[in-house]
Amino acid sequence: MTILVINSGSSSLKFQVIDSENEEVLAKGVCERIGIDGRFTYRTRTGISLKEAVPMKNHTQAVHTLLDTLADPEKGVIKDFREIDVIGHRLVHGGEKFTGSVVITDEVTQAMTECNDLAPLHNPANLVGVEACRKLMPDTLMVGVFDTAFNQTMEPKAFLYGLPYRYYERHRIRRYGFHGISHKYVSRRAAEFMGQDPGRVKTIVCHLGNGASICAVKYGQVVDNSMGFTPLEGLVMGTRCGDVDPGALEFLAKKENLDFAQVLDILNQESGVLGISKNFSSDFRELKDAEIKYNDQAALAREIFAYRVAKYVGSYAAAMNGVDNIVFTAGVGENDSDIRMEICSYLEYLGITIDEVKNRDEAEAFRISDGSSRVNVLVIKTNEELEIAREAAEVARMYH
Amino acid sequence: MTILVINSGSSSLKFQVIDSENEEVLAKGVCERIGIDGRFTYRTRTGISLKEAVPMKNHTQAVHTLLDTLADPEKGVIKDFREIDVIGHRLVHGGEKFTGSVVITDEVTQAMTECNDLAPLHNPANLVGVEACRKLMPDTLMVGVFDTAFNQTMEPKAFLYGLPYRYYERHRIRRYGFHGISHKYVSRRAAEFMGQDPGRVKTIVCHLGNGASICAVKYGQVVDNSMGFTPLEGLVMGTRCGDVDPGALEFLAKKENLDFAQVLDILNQESGVLGISKNFSSDFRELKDAEIKYNDQAALAREIFAYRVAKYVGSYAAAMNGVDNIVFTAGVGENDSDIRMEICSYLEYLGITIDEVKNRDEAEAFRISDGSSRVNVLVIKTNEELEIAREAAEVARMYH
Repeated sequence: MTILVINSGSSSLKFQVIDSENEEVLAKGVCERIGIDGRFTYRTRTGISLKEAVPMKNHTQAVHTLLDTLADPEKGVIKDFREIDVIGHRLVHGGEKFTGSVVITDEVTQAMTECNDLAPLHNPANLVGVEACRKLMPDTLMVGVFDTAFNQTMEPKAFLYGLPYRYYERHRIRRYGFHGISHKYVSRRAAEFMGQDPGRVKTIVCHLGNGASICAVKYGQVVDNSMGFTPLEGLVMGTRCGDVDPGALEFLAKKENLDFAQVLDILNQESGVLGISKNFSSDFRELKDAEIKYNDQAALAREIFAYRVAKYVGSYAAAMNGVDNIVFTAGVGENDSDIRMEICSYLEYLGITIDEVKNRDEAEAFRISDGSSRVNVLVIKTNEELEIAREAAEVARMYH
Repeated sequence: MTILVINSGSSSLKFQVIDSENEEVLAKGVCERIGIDGRFTYRTRTGISLKEAVPMKNHTQAVHTLLDTLADPEKGVIKDFREIDVIGHRLVHGGEKFTGSVVITDEVTQAMTECNDLAPLHNPANLVGVEACRKLMPDTLMVGVFDTAFNQTMEPKAFLYGLPYRYYERHRIRRYGFHGISHKYVSRRAAEFMGQDPGRVKTIVCHLGNGASICAVKYGQVVDNSMGFTPLEGLVMGTRCGDVDPGALEFLAKKENLDFAQVLDILNQESGVLGISKNFSSDFRELKDAEIKYNDQAALAREIFAYRVAKYVGSYAAAMNGVDNIVFTAGVGENDSDIRMEICSYLEYLGITIDEVKNRDEAEAFRISDGSSRVNVLVIKTNEELEIAREAAEVARMYH
C-alpha cells in the first residue's frame, strides 16, 4: 500500500509517502509557516529536492500543495492522489478512549475534540490536518495513530497520582505518557535487532531529544512512562523542567509575584538545560561544545540531565523487576556518545559494561554494551513516520 | 552528660532526658495543646507515669512544667535543672547555612530566622522552644540539630531542579531533603548492626511514616533525598501527594477554580493515601484492615505507595551505582511487614531474597533478607531523640 503520513502542527505540516510493502520512503517534506508566508520543503527517494516559498493561507492549501507536488509529472512520485491508499495521521492525545490506532470517523474526531482540553496546543492542530485531508481526498481512508495509545497499558498503580481520587473521576487527571509511537517502534526494533521475542523481554527506552521521556516496556506493554498528564513531567529537557516539588513552585510564584499560568510558561519554556545553563542554550550539542570550553553551567546542565536519566532507568528496572534491553534514541540519544557513556557509568551495578569503541558507532541500530554485559545497551534511530505507516497499513488491512 | 532533648512545635513540645554515657532515657514526655488548655504526659525509666491537664499559656510555661516535673523529689529524675548539661533542640530547616549541629548563639537564631521563609510552619515554632529554654535556663548550653543538615552533602546534580538557575541564586530554591536526623541515625545503625564500616557502604533508608522519604547514603554522606524544597515531594504519603506533574496542577486549578495556595492545601492535606482511598484513611493500618475486607480503594492506595517506594529504591541504586543495605524505618517501615514484602517483590533483580519468617520479626533492629541475598534488607527502629542527644553531647565536648 502507498501510505501518506501526516503530522500536522499549528503552523506546519510534515509528510512522508511510504510504500508499506518494502517500507521505503518515496518522498517527504514539510509545509511551514502556514497562515504566515508559507515555505515548502520536499525531497524524493530519486534525489529531487525543493525548497521554495509557496503561499499557504491554511492547512487545506498546504495539503493541496503537497498533493500537487506528489502527483507532478516531473517532481512527483505518484500519478494521481488516488494512488494513496491510506493517510496515517499522527494524533497527540487520545485520552483514555484510544488504546490503539483507529479509522478516523466522525465519532473519532468528535471524541478527539473532547480531548482537546488535555492537549490544547496539539490536538486542535492535528484535527485541522485531518479536516484538510478530508476536504481534498474525501474517499481516502484515514487512520489516526495516537502518541498516547501505546502507554494505555499502564496499570492504575503507575498512572494514578497521589491526588484525591475525585480528580481522576471528574477530570481524568492521571499519567498518560507521551512519545508512545517512538517507544513502540524502538522497543520492537530493539527486540528484532537482538533476535528476541518482544513478548518476552523487558526494555527501557530512553527517548532523549529536546523533549525527552523514558518508558518501561515489559513483554511488549508499557508499564510506566516518565511523562505524565502533560509532557512537562519527568526528565530535565531542552526547555522543560521535568520533576519538581510543587511546594517550590508555590514559593516561586509568591516570591516573583507570578500566577499559575506564568509559572507554567517558565517551566515549559525557560527551564530545563536552557534554564540551568543560564540561558546559554537548549541544544545539547551547543552545551557540549561549551562544556569543552570550560563553561561550568553548560557542564552542570548536562550532568543533571544525565543523572536524571540514570535515576529513571534505575527506577524502571525496579518497576519491571529487571531489565534486558536499554535503548537510546532520538536526537541526543542517537548522537551524543558522551551522554550515553555518562548515563551508563551509573549503571554498572546492573552488570552493564559498555564498549567505548562501539559506543562511537553510527548506524540505524547498534549495540554499545560488550559481550559480557548482563543487559544489552543499544542505540536505535527512531522512526515515528514508519511506525505510523505500519499502523495505518495494518488498520487498513483489517478494515477492508 | 545529661541531655535534655526538645522538639518544639507550634502547640506542642516533646522532650526526653537522656544520659549520654549509657544512652538511657531517664524520662520523656510531651506538652500538648499549648496556648489552648494544656495537657502534660510524662513517663520515667523507673515506671512513673503521668497524664494530666496542666494549663500552659505558652511554651515558656510548658518548659517550666517539664523542668518542675523533672526536678520533683518524687516524680523527677534529676535534683535540679542545673544537672542538665546540654539542651539539644530539633530544628527543622537550616537552609544551606547549617551543614551540621551547632551551639545556639544569637547569630544562629538570627540565621535560622532568615530560613523561616523556607519552613514557615516549623522554624518559628522551633525557635519559640529555644527562647523558652533560654529564658528559664540562661546558662545551659544549647545545641541545634537540623533535620536538613545531614542532607547538605548532596551535590548540585542532585539538589538543583531543572528550573532557571536564577531562582536558585535569588531564592535558594533547591532540594533540601528532610528526615535527616532519622536517616543519619538509621544508616549508621544499619552499618553497626551488620558490622560494617559506615564509610564503606551504600545504604538506602526508607523512612516510611505518615510523612515518608527515601535517602541514598553513600560512604556516610547523603547523595539524594526524595523530599525536596519542601516535605511535599517524593513518595505518596499519608495526606501528601508526593511527585506530580506541575501541568496537572495547573489544569486542576483551572477546572476547580482554585488558586495556588488552595491547590497546595489539597496536595498537603487531602492527598496521598487518604486521597487515593477516597478519604477512607491516612493511616496505613486502617487501610490494611480495609484491604482485607475488600476495600478496593484502600488496596489501591497501598499498592501505589509500595510501587513508588520500590521505584525510588531502584532510582537510588542507580544514583549510587549500587546498594549494600536497604533499611525500613519509622511507623510503617518498622511495623508493616506486608508493605515491606510488597516493596521487596519488585527488587529481586538486585539479587534480593527475603526470609518471610524473619520479615515478621519485631525488634529494635533485625535483618529480613536471607543469607543468599546480595543486598542486606533490614528493619531498624529510628530514634531521632537519641541522635539529637548524641550530636548535642558531641558538640558540647568540642565546645568545652
